[in-house]
Amino acid sequence: MSLIVQKFGGSSVSDADGIKRVARRIMDTRAQGHDVVVVVSAMGDTTDDLLDLAGQLTDDAPAREMDMLLSSGERISMALLAMAIDAAGGKAVSFTGSQAGMVTDAVHGKARIIEVSPDRVRKAIERQHVAIVAGFQGMSKDSHNITTMGRGGSDTTAVALAAALDADVCEIYTDVDGVYTADPRIVSSAQKIDKISSEEMLEMAASGAKVLHLRCVEYARRFGVPLHVRSSFSTNEGTWVLPSPDDKIKIQEGEPLEQPIISGVAHDRSEAKVTVVGVPDIPGKAAEIFGVIAGANSNIDMIVQNVSTAGRGKTDISFTLPIVEGKDALAALHEAQERIGFEGVEYNEKIGKLSLIGAGMRSNPGVSFRFFEALSAAGVNVDMISTSEIRISIVTDADKLDTAVKAVHTAFNLDSDDAATVYGGTGR
Amino acid sequence: MSLIVQKFGGSSVSDADGIKRVARRIMDTRAQGHDVVVVVSAMGDTTDDLLDLAGQLTDDAPAREMDMLLSSGERISMALLAMAIDAAGGKAVSFTGSQAGMVTDAVHGKARIIEVSPDRVRKAIERQHVAIVAGFQGMSKDSHNITTMGRGGSDTTAVALAAALDADVCEIYTDVDGVYTADPRIVSSAQKIDKISSEEMLEMAASGAKVLHLRCVEYARRFGVPLHVRSSFSTNEGTWVLPSPDDKIKIQEGEPLEQPIISGVAHDRSEAKVTVVGVPDIPGKAAEIFGVIAGANSNIDMIVQNVSTAGRGKTDISFTLPIVEGKDALAALHEAQERIGFEGVEYNEKIGKLSLIGAGMRSNPGVSFRFFEALSAAGVNVDMISTSEIRISIVTDADKLDTAVKAVHTAFNLDSDDAATVYGGTGR
Repeated sequence: MSLIVQKFGGSSVSDADGIKRVARRIMDTRAQGHDVVVVVSAMGDTTDDLLDLAGQLTDDAPAREMDMLLSSGERISMALLAMAIDAAGGKAVSFTGSQAGMVTDAVHGKARIIEVSPDRVRKAIERQHVAIVAGFQGMSKDSHNITTMGRGGSDTTAVALAAALDADVCEIYTDVDGVYTADPRIVSSAQKIDKISSEEMLEMAASGAKVLHLRCVEYARRFGVPLHVRSSFSTNEGTWVLPSPDDKIKIQEGEPLEQPIISGVAHDRSEAKVTVVGVPDIPGKAAEIFGVIAGANSNIDMIVQNVSTAGRGKTDISFTLPIVEGKDALAALHEAQERIGFEGVEYNEKIGKLSLIGAGMRSNPGVSFRFFEALSAAGVNVDMISTSEIRISIVTDADKLDTAVKAVHTAFNLDSDDAATVYGGTGR
Repeated sequence: MSLIVQKFGGSSVSDADGIKRVARRIMDTRAQGHDVVVVVSAMGDTTDDLLDLAGQLTDDAPAREMDMLLSSGERISMALLAMAIDAAGGKAVSFTGSQAGMVTDAVHGKARIIEVSPDRVRKAIERQHVAIVAGFQGMSKDSHNITTMGRGGSDTTAVALAAALDADVCEIYTDVDGVYTADPRIVSSAQKIDKISSEEMLEMAASGAKVLHLRCVEYARRFGVPLHVRSSFSTNEGTWVLPSPDDKIKIQEGEPLEQPIISGVAHDRSEAKVTVVGVPDIPGKAAEIFGVIAGANSNIDMIVQNVSTAGRGKTDISFTLPIVEGKDALAALHEAQERIGFEGVEYNEKIGKLSLIGAGMRSNPGVSFRFFEALSAAGVNVDMISTSEIRISIVTDADKLDTAVKAVHTAFNLDSDDAATVYGGTGR
């Protein structure tokens, strides 16, 4: 018997039928002899409807009241889910974030978890009840106000509860089968990944893969929680995200020893490129520029500094940041232009980022060569490059991104037909 | 400067415009220099929508989860109202029932208040904020579950907060101007009552007047909270419900000493009449019958026992109870028929109850005479009679009820044109 935390998103509980389906899924898990803790998001459009109501009253709602408003959404879905389980002959009890012991800081709208004390959840499990916990919300430690956690908050709630309860697995239910080697809407031959290390998943999520939130993967990795990303519409196994390298290389009997080199290809269209032109090539100027950007609360991703043109004493510095933060960053740069002494700023939103991720590239020389060769053969220009130990990312023109993703996916034999020859028998 | 508790019902906050109007009303009260605590119900149809969702899942929802579900409604309206006040330049902070210290028993769906500890509300007032409290909900004392209070719960929340905070007045905003001498839909000449004692209001509410809930009036009377029932659509004075007789006879300079004899005429169509026929006329039989009804959880209102027919040794016992409880009561009676030994049961839903209420009837002989004379002149049959010190109620045929209400209203000079001659200068 295991303790399983199951997280269901808003699209899984968008109406009464969805709630009933989720209730059956939970009952099936109980019938297999497991204890179940459920984390649930607000129903389908609830959050948008509430935001719309608030928008009719003000453009600048107090953050505390916005959290009070939005947190009602999960209260509705969790109570309904408890009723559906009861109607199906089970026993369930629902808990708000604060009842479940989700203690956060006081940053309304994007609170961070600072303590998890799920005493009432534990008691419910002991009484053989399904405990249903509101995702996305908690209570601030000192002021005892209701907080919400922002994007990825429900996934993170589930992982945090799994960690605090020492659950065997945290299942993240979604509307896709799992994590794919590339976005199936771009690469039709993309395959579902059976297992991936949380380290790799972290790079995938940071590089634009949308199935799991970066924050949730970080939490799971830090606390050693195994994640299982799977579909709420089937009982198929999804993708296991395993926290430690040890877990990753656990090999079942009869499974080939060879591990995959590459996990997948991720892409991202949400960033823009900023080039600061004609920066005086003297120490400290780059720091000044990034200080200005930081002051505008922008998150810089990739950075490239061009080699100074001999004798000219000037250089160009390019970086990427989220498009939504572009306007503020540009304003801050223009304001600082005279003081820093650069010549101008160029801004381009029509870029795409492609990332190749795989823990195996650490020990496999030649990955970069094959990567750039594939891009070149496909006629894809490479504008910026950044790498980590287990990732290579490039920036190209937005209209070349799909071509690039397909070319790289094929070059690393990730397409489904011939994948088995590279990946051994695991079929990932 | 006073501390004013203002309660707004669901129809006052049914959409963004309603919420803005309520926010302005609150700001106006603040501008007059008062501290304001607001109790708000769920928006318009929210509760019905939530009940509908639950109904799609189960006919028999666990009461704890139903409370969790329904309590989300006020959370939405109170957060939106706080936003609207903020947008209008005010400062407001919203509190759930449990944050506001509304501690109840554990009877989900109809919890009773057992303790009110509004520390956070008090602090908000000290910081010159408008405190907005969710009506209708609290937290159970021992189990710390969210409870709802059932019918009249928001009014009762407002009165309970007013009592705990020692507020100067509890204003109940509604869609009518106040309490009337009779239902204006039946008696077009009915007048708004300016002042009424809580004792009389209690009889009015118990006799079918719908503006204020019996429970709220009981609480206000017990804790000496002055109520002001008024319209959320105008700034006119409404009806003051004053808790102690002393308050009632406070006389402003120049006001005539004569107090009104009669406050108003209330009516009720929600009851049915049960007659148990041929009950053996021996001691203890009536007790047995009422024991059966109590066992079916029915609330008996009026009772009449006919005089035993000489020599027959049998009598009839009639009583009224809410129509909604009729079916269970009849079933229980039929089951007990053989044991008790009565001959049969008659049941009639086509009855109406009329009540004349006035503290002045205590010291004014002749009220009964004038009452029955008016009914007789109007051709209204009287089927049952019950009285208290300040009330006379009769039961008649349902189709005679409107005629009866008009006749009595006129007989006691409650019609607006000549009311002043009887009621002195207060114009009530």
